[in-house]
Amino acid sequence: MKNVAVILSGCGVYDGSEIHEVCAALLALHRAGAAVTACAPRTPQMHVIDHTAGEPAAGEARDVLCESARLVRGEIKELGEVDPATVDAVLLPGGFGAAKNLCDFATAGADCTVNQGVADFLRRAHAAGKPIGAMCIAPVILARVFGADLAPQLTIGNDAGTAAAVEAMGGRHVDCAVTDSVVDAENRMVTSPAYMLAGDMGQVFDGAEDFVGKLLALCN
Amino acid sequence: MKNVAVILSGCGVYDGSEIHEVCAALLALHRAGAAVTACAPRTPQMHVIDHTAGEPAAGEARDVLCESARLVRGEIKELGEVDPATVDAVLLPGGFGAAKNLCDFATAGADCTVNQGVADFLRRAHAAGKPIGAMCIAPVILARVFGADLAPQLTIGNDAGTAAAVEAMGGRHVDCAVTDSVVDAENRMVTSPAYMLAGDMGQVFDGAEDFVGKLLALCN
Repeated sequence: MKNVAVILSGCGVYDGSEIHEVCAALLALHRAGAAVTACAPRTPQMHVIDHTAGEPAAGEARDVLCESARLVRGEIKELGEVDPATVDAVLLPGGFGAAKNLCDFATAGADCTVNQGVADFLRRAHAAGKPIGAMCIAPVILARVFGADLAPQLTIGNDAGTAAAVEAMGGRHVDCAVTDSVVDAENRMVTSPAYMLAGDMGQVFDGAEDFVGKLLALCN
Repeated sequence: MKNVAVILSGCGVYDGSEIHEVCAALLALHRAGAAVTACAPRTPQMHVIDHTAGEPAAGEARDVLCESARLVRGEIKELGEVDPATVDAVLLPGGFGAAKNLCDFATAGADCTVNQGVADFLRRAHAAGKPIGAMCIAPVILARVFGADLAPQLTIGNDAGTAAAVEAMGGRHVDCAVTDSVVDAENRMVTSPAYMLAGDMGQVFDGAEDFVGKLLALCN
């Protein structure tokens, strides 16, 4: 049975992991017969967004690990407790948390810095031959961590500004349809647009099934 | 196109709506061609649970409507702004939030009281002929609101203590397999065990498809 590390970034599209994308990825992994090791860094969220207003909630602070735990009914590990050598693949769902909590792409764009624990985990996973998948906006993390060395092929859908940022960080952006995925077989990376393009949940779940299948196909 | 009011109770199994159940219900509704009116009462959560520890987080307070909004990317209404006459059916997902925030079953058991806005909404929906569906622990709300008058057939799976509480409130409990649902056609109510019995996400999504199909079949 394949075991996939799913790196979460909070719980809710505007300040954490996108909930539908996480459920779509987890369901696709389950249906493909893979086990999940959910994990997240123990670090403060950039901020808390009131999702009824789309505005920051004054005076609130939340922890990425604690909020991520909601998505997996408490079955989660601190990222530093997971050895990338023990999993078969790594999966990064999207949501603004990927661009606010796992790195600061949301504010710094192509000049962003990736959380050190996340960057180390991804580098060690890649060095050990593990395929890495990223949905929605999360491919910017792969562009930042691997762009300069590997120039991986990545997609964030077709948004021109975000694609230009991926290229500025050394990635090679490929436009992609909403339920499709881009595979860089040489670098063992799979990326898929999800809610960067999706207009409804059905597209997210259909896209996740394609994406997860291609990710698992890259496992040794 | 059918329009289904989905009443949420926060975001996270231990203090809100169960996330996988909500996504499973929303996906099943989408795939069945139904629209969703997500709604929740604006009321404080009973408490906030740190989902890594399963324990209350001291000093934290959250609002049911604000947290529920995370599940639907901000597309939500305050429950009081929705007229039950304008929807075709009502759906209550599970999670402890249903038993802590929409009523106090988690602490009061068969002596529980239902949030006034929720009770009013359900009574008006039923009086207008709208079918009502409830997953997991949420059928206890239907037992409390309708038990004395209608003695509806309901399921919470097969947990003896919870089933006894349903009966004590006037419901007629029917044991049910994990991916099946119980239909009370006369009272236009459908209930399904979901995570009261489910051992994995696949069962929750399979059960939700059955449950939503039976709920929509009861619509006029």
